[in-house]
Amino acid sequence: MSAKTFIVETLQLEGSSRSARALHMVHGVALSLGMVAVVLGTVTSVTAAAGTLLAAVTYAVVLLFAVEYWLRLAFAPELGLAPDVLSPGEARLRWVTSSAGIIDLLAWLPLLVALLVMSDAAHARLFGTFWILKFGRHAPRLGVLGRVLRQAREPLLAVFVAFLAVLLVAAVLAYVIEAPGQPETFGSVPQALWWAIATLTTTGYGDAVPQTPLGRFLAGGVMVCGILVFALWAGILATEFAKEMRRHDFLKTWDLVAKVPYFEKLEAVTIAEVVHLLKPIEFTPGAVVVRRGAPGDCMYFIVEGEIEIQVKPEPVILGPGSFFGEIALITGGARTATAVARRPSVLLALDIVHFRELAATRPDLTAAIDAEAKRRVLQGT
Amino acid sequence: MSAKTFIVETLQLEGSSRSARALHMVHGVALSLGMVAVVLGTVTSVTAAAGTLLAAVTYAVVLLFAVEYWLRLAFAPELGLAPDVLSPGEARLRWVTSSAGIIDLLAWLPLLVALLVMSDAAHARLFGTFWILKFGRHAPRLGVLGRVLRQAREPLLAVFVAFLAVLLVAAVLAYVIEAPGQPETFGSVPQALWWAIATLTTTGYGDAVPQTPLGRFLAGGVMVCGILVFALWAGILATEFAKEMRRHDFLKTWDLVAKVPYFEKLEAVTIAEVVHLLKPIEFTPGAVVVRRGAPGDCMYFIVEGEIEIQVKPEPVILGPGSFFGEIALITGGARTATAVARRPSVLLALDIVHFRELAATRPDLTAAIDAEAKRRVLQGT
Amino acid sequence: MSAKTFIVETLQLEGSSRSARALHMVHGVALSLGMVAVVLGTVTSVTAAAGTLLAAVTYAVVLLFAVEYWLRLAFAPELGLAPDVLSPGEARLRWVTSSAGIIDLLAWLPLLVALLVMSDAAHARLFGTFWILKFGRHAPRLGVLGRVLRQAREPLLAVFVAFLAVLLVAAVLAYVIEAPGQPETFGSVPQALWWAIATLTTTGYGDAVPQTPLGRFLAGGVMVCGILVFALWAGILATEFAKEMRRHDFLKTWDLVAKVPYFEKLEAVTIAEVVHLLKPIEFTPGAVVVRRGAPGDCMYFIVEGEIEIQVKPEPVILGPGSFFGEIALITGGARTATAVARRPSVLLALDIVHFRELAATRPDLTAAIDAEAKRRVLQGT
Amino acid sequence: MSAKTFIVETLQLEGSSRSARALHMVHGVALSLGMVAVVLGTVTSVTAAAGTLLAAVTYAVVLLFAVEYWLRLAFAPELGLAPDVLSPGEARLRWVTSSAGIIDLLAWLPLLVALLVMSDAAHARLFGTFWILKFGRHAPRLGVLGRVLRQAREPLLAVFVAFLAVLLVAAVLAYVIEAPGQPETFGSVPQALWWAIATLTTTGYGDAVPQTPLGRFLAGGVMVCGILVFALWAGILATEFAKEMRRHDFLKTWDLVAKVPYFEKLEAVTIAEVVHLLKPIEFTPGAVVVRRGAPGDCMYFIVEGEIEIQVKPEPVILGPGSFFGEIALITGGARTATAVARRPSVLLALDIVHFRELAATRPDLTAAIDAEAKRRVLQGT
Repeated sequence: MSAKTFIVETLQLEGSSRSARALHMVHGVALSLGMVAVVLGTVTSVTAAAGTLLAAVTYAVVLLFAVEYWLRLAFAPELGLAPDVLSPGEARLRWVTSSAGIIDLLAWLPLLVALLVMSDAAHARLFGTFWILKFGRHAPRLGVLGRVLRQAREPLLAVFVAFLAVLLVAAVLAYVIEAPGQPETFGSVPQALWWAIATLTTTGYGDAVPQTPLGRFLAGGVMVCGILVFALWAGILATEFAKEMRRHDFLKTWDLVAKVPYFEKLEAVTIAEVVHLLKPIEFTPGAVVVRRGAPGDCMYFIVEGEIEIQVKPEPVILGPGSFFGEIALITGGARTATAVARRPSVLLALDIVHFRELAATRPDLTAAIDAEAKRRVLQGT
Repeated sequence: MSAKTFIVETLQLEGSSRSARALHMVHGVALSLGMVAVVLGTVTSVTAAAGTLLAAVTYAVVLLFAVEYWLRLAFAPELGLAPDVLSPGEARLRWVTSSAGIIDLLAWLPLLVALLVMSDAAHARLFGTFWILKFGRHAPRLGVLGRVLRQAREPLLAVFVAFLAVLLVAAVLAYVIEAPGQPETFGSVPQALWWAIATLTTTGYGDAVPQTPLGRFLAGGVMVCGILVFALWAGILATEFAKEMRRHDFLKTWDLVAKVPYFEKLEAVTIAEVVHLLKPIEFTPGAVVVRRGAPGDCMYFIVEGEIEIQVKPEPVILGPGSFFGEIALITGGARTATAVARRPSVLLALDIVHFRELAATRPDLTAAIDAEAKRRVLQGT
Repeated sequence: MSAKTFIVETLQLEGSSRSARALHMVHGVALSLGMVAVVLGTVTSVTAAAGTLLAAVTYAVVLLFAVEYWLRLAFAPELGLAPDVLSPGEARLRWVTSSAGIIDLLAWLPLLVALLVMSDAAHARLFGTFWILKFGRHAPRLGVLGRVLRQAREPLLAVFVAFLAVLLVAAVLAYVIEAPGQPETFGSVPQALWWAIATLTTTGYGDAVPQTPLGRFLAGGVMVCGILVFALWAGILATEFAKEMRRHDFLKTWDLVAKVPYFEKLEAVTIAEVVHLLKPIEFTPGAVVVRRGAPGDCMYFIVEGEIEIQVKPEPVILGPGSFFGEIALITGGARTATAVARRPSVLLALDIVHFRELAATRPDLTAAIDAEAKRRVLQGT
Repeated sequence: MSAKTFIVETLQLEGSSRSARALHMVHGVALSLGMVAVVLGTVTSVTAAAGTLLAAVTYAVVLLFAVEYWLRLAFAPELGLAPDVLSPGEARLRWVTSSAGIIDLLAWLPLLVALLVMSDAAHARLFGTFWILKFGRHAPRLGVLGRVLRQAREPLLAVFVAFLAVLLVAAVLAYVIEAPGQPETFGSVPQALWWAIATLTTTGYGDAVPQTPLGRFLAGGVMVCGILVFALWAGILATEFAKEMRRHDFLKTWDLVAKVPYFEKLEAVTIAEVVHLLKPIEFTPGAVVVRRGAPGDCMYFIVEGEIEIQVKPEPVILGPGSFFGEIALITGGARTATAVARRPSVLLALDIVHFRELAATRPDLTAAIDAEAKRRVLQGT
């Protein structure tokens, strides 16, 4: 493998090569250490005791991210989504102006400039807070959250507008009611707004508290509105999240099901049905998929990798396209053999609930599984 | 276009004409500036420095809303929902007594009277808080929220009644338990109610805190009840919101699907099916719908507007009724061309998930899309 | 109508007779006045000014509830659920030992005894807090809430057990960490428990606050657990509430649909389908069901009562079994006539969304509605 | 029954034998008493008054759990899930290294060592906090909660990561804004973090409160983010919980339905349908299942146990496989007889809603119920 191929593979964000996963880990460690340096660097006693160490950590992280930036820029054509469509220059420009490129730039440039320019190193290090953006880029499921918030933004915003309206009205009323009695805390609408937001979010610092009966009645109303805002947002996000999860799972499983030979001969309509029943799971090498003697509640189809079934006299190795675990499912008893992943593997699990539903609605599908199970029991494999 | 037509078009609340959108923006700016004047006008230092400016802003906003009110009144017959059914007098009377008319009146009359009558301009300006109602009238999705709250009002009220009952019982018990020890904060049931509401909503100002073990045990119970109230409301609103979203999306999409020639020949039963799969999206002129090289996850049907497909040798312009983006969907590859909206456009997006479901259950529908995709690939358009 | 029949009708909890509704209102007023007397009676200035009035109100409410109790006891056989199954003695005994009977007894006996025995009237009146139970008995939808909480009690309790476990562990850890530094607020586990509950419910009174870094780290973890408890309960209740609402609506509508002649001839399977689409709504006399010129978004079937369609030359009166409002639904235009309820009426609303679905899946059903609409348009009624 | 069988039956975690349930209760009492001793043992006045009692309770509980541990270890081969698959040694080793074995060990060993080694008994007793783990192991529905949290861990973690990011950014900004004015509470980022977490979780102790307008604006934003985190978690857990409840109920009911002879002859496809309609309920001996004269809203199938129908001249005893309660369901009237469980019984309830749905879609199934109901009414049983 050439150096170039190696670097490109390493820089793949969701790459499964050993070097890509190593880089992912180095990233995590560097970000964590860096953030600790930013946070602790503001404590005088720590900087007095370990100032040099903090500086060393900060510079090391900046260096790492700067090098990574230039590598990503250099290999942008190979790392892009559509290498055959864009010219190298176009690909580099797109990456630099993409959110990923800007985040990767913010991860080292502002901090480096600050460290060189500012006299107070602790204050300069605060620019390391931009690392959080980088962290977000490497967190896997944040994408789903972002999608949910984007899909639900209209009703969320509508609730937020209602929240602001209640806030303003509450502040004006509190100002009218409480200003005469407490001019130092409710003496202007902006001051009353501070009380209103701490009350509407049910935070309740207690630094501004209405004293008149009318003011307290108002406060009670504002608190209840706060609960309602919580509840509305929760309701909106629950609805949207449920929708998004269905979409996400469907897409992910469809891609995997299409790789299993057992389902290959099915028509599209049946695949769509089966996709709703299967759940993809990933295993690292050495992970125990099922353990001998444990109760059996699902069977597995192998999409990727290799599974070793530990039977006597010698283990059976199953590859992509095979299935196992169906015996315990059919007999209802304990697992008769332990199964271990020998390589990074992706399996599709068919839950006992769904196996029974499938057996009821599509007996032709489960018949093949039954037949295979009987054959295996007879052969003692 | 006559002056009358121009004014009527401008005053359309959800009008898409340029002047209507301009008025909408002027409204937003005026409301924001006005509210800032109301809020900052109560801060002594600000009024000392910029009193004249605040007064000018306030009068300008009042004037704007007064003029708008008289225009809306004058053109009520043309702006009403059913111009052919009501006489002009009936239409004006209905508008004046409608919530919209009352809100528009409250937006200028009380403030104007207060400014003329009251000596303290800052206090007079507080009547500008009525502008929030006007803001609510122009916010788009508040209608959905209102509908959800109205539909769910019975269970919400039931929870609120339970909330009040817990509040009263907690206050009476806290009074009995804590009054002997802390007569100044728990000396009467109304005082204990103040503690109870700050505790039940988990606000916890900390100005009234039980000291006896029994009182603290009671407080713990009240806090847990507070969480339960949150949770119940959230549960109720989630249920109702999910229902309302389904209704809202269905209606909106049905109207759009009916405009696409491709679906015209379908029977009602199939339209009802298709409506559940399509998602309407709006684009402003110049917006990029799909970008060359990006991964493709949905195809589009054009309902309104014009889309430019940037292919060589020269771009193709698609109008209402056409569809595009199906090639990337079928091949699974990246987008082969960029598509840009040339005019305000409404598209119906068919997600890859739903496209596959449709292909499975209604192969006749997707066959036409397949055929068109093949034709386009061959022609290189 | 005999006196006995009148009393029995009046005492019906959900009776629709005029006297039953009057009693319901008297109840509400008496309960509200009574609770106000209980609450304000503990404020010294109020008792000094209006002590006699408070006493009078209290005695009046006690008298009312005592009389009601004896009447309900006397007429228990007639008011019971199964008058033909139980003997009068059995019926009375069952009522006395039922929760309803006990609540009605608690509404007057303890308070009366306290007023006669205790010297401090304000303290005696606190026994009026039992009235809240009575209030609960008359609130309509509390039943649904109770059912939801009962159905979901197992997972709710499981979360509560987890809540208690976190509470105890947090208190023990806080005691270990903070006791040396703050012996007066964290000096024992019970004291630490007080901090823990105010933190876990995110109330945060601020009277006990950890000072050590480790204690604050613990506090952060406890707060996050508190949010998780909120979220778990909300999730559980949302799931259960959605289930209960479906059940409740289905049952209510089935009973009503069975009364509409138009649906009479349908087979059970179709009724089950139709029930899911109809929504029952109640109208008081004089209520406007649809207004001329307003946009039409549903049609109505009359289950009970009388609706007046205000068309010229003279209004048409529709009784139970008729339907109206279908013209605007089919043409998509504004309502062509105003419809007003002449008597307390129950209607079944068929939403435009569901009308279209019905038209797609059951054209035979909507054909009859179409035919009737055409007939009416032709006749101009 | 031999001593060995008796012990094995007693130690069954979810055993239904009398001795197993007795042990379950002893466990509960011992855990509760023990935890009370732990908590109260830290209060000086209590230890002074009842130190010996606390010590006695603690030693008794430790002894109980130690004995239980050795018994469970000795009988691990018989208590394990797959006695025929593992050798006794393997079974014991597996139990010792299982979470159950570790929890049972932690329930007595650390406390015993601490009591023997440490001089301060109150501090030693704090090791009894490990009992909470044991409690969790015996709580029934905690398993479902654990499964929900495990299934939803990815999105929950994503929200938590976003929570941490907001926390860090808020703390850094608050430090920059507030440190100059309040060096003692915002003087370093760790100190600002303490403010940030109390604000982001809307706890609001009030010991650190921003004073500058900019700091307060930031605080408002942080509070709103806190509400969003609540709402996101609630939404995620609601979605996942609904899924888990469906799975759980389906599995539980399937096992029971398979035991009812009435459903025996059905094909798998119909059982899958019926399972969705039935709800399993457990009754203890003497529990009243239906009461004469009460309104009837469901019928019951007996899975396990014995039900006595109290009709004249003498009661009828129904065993597993029978059904009852269908008469009130069909006639819509009150229950005609009381039914009492004579032994611990498991029934499947068929709700009136679902009975009607079943009657509509599967008339053959309800026909048999109708026929039986008619026969019973005729016979007067």
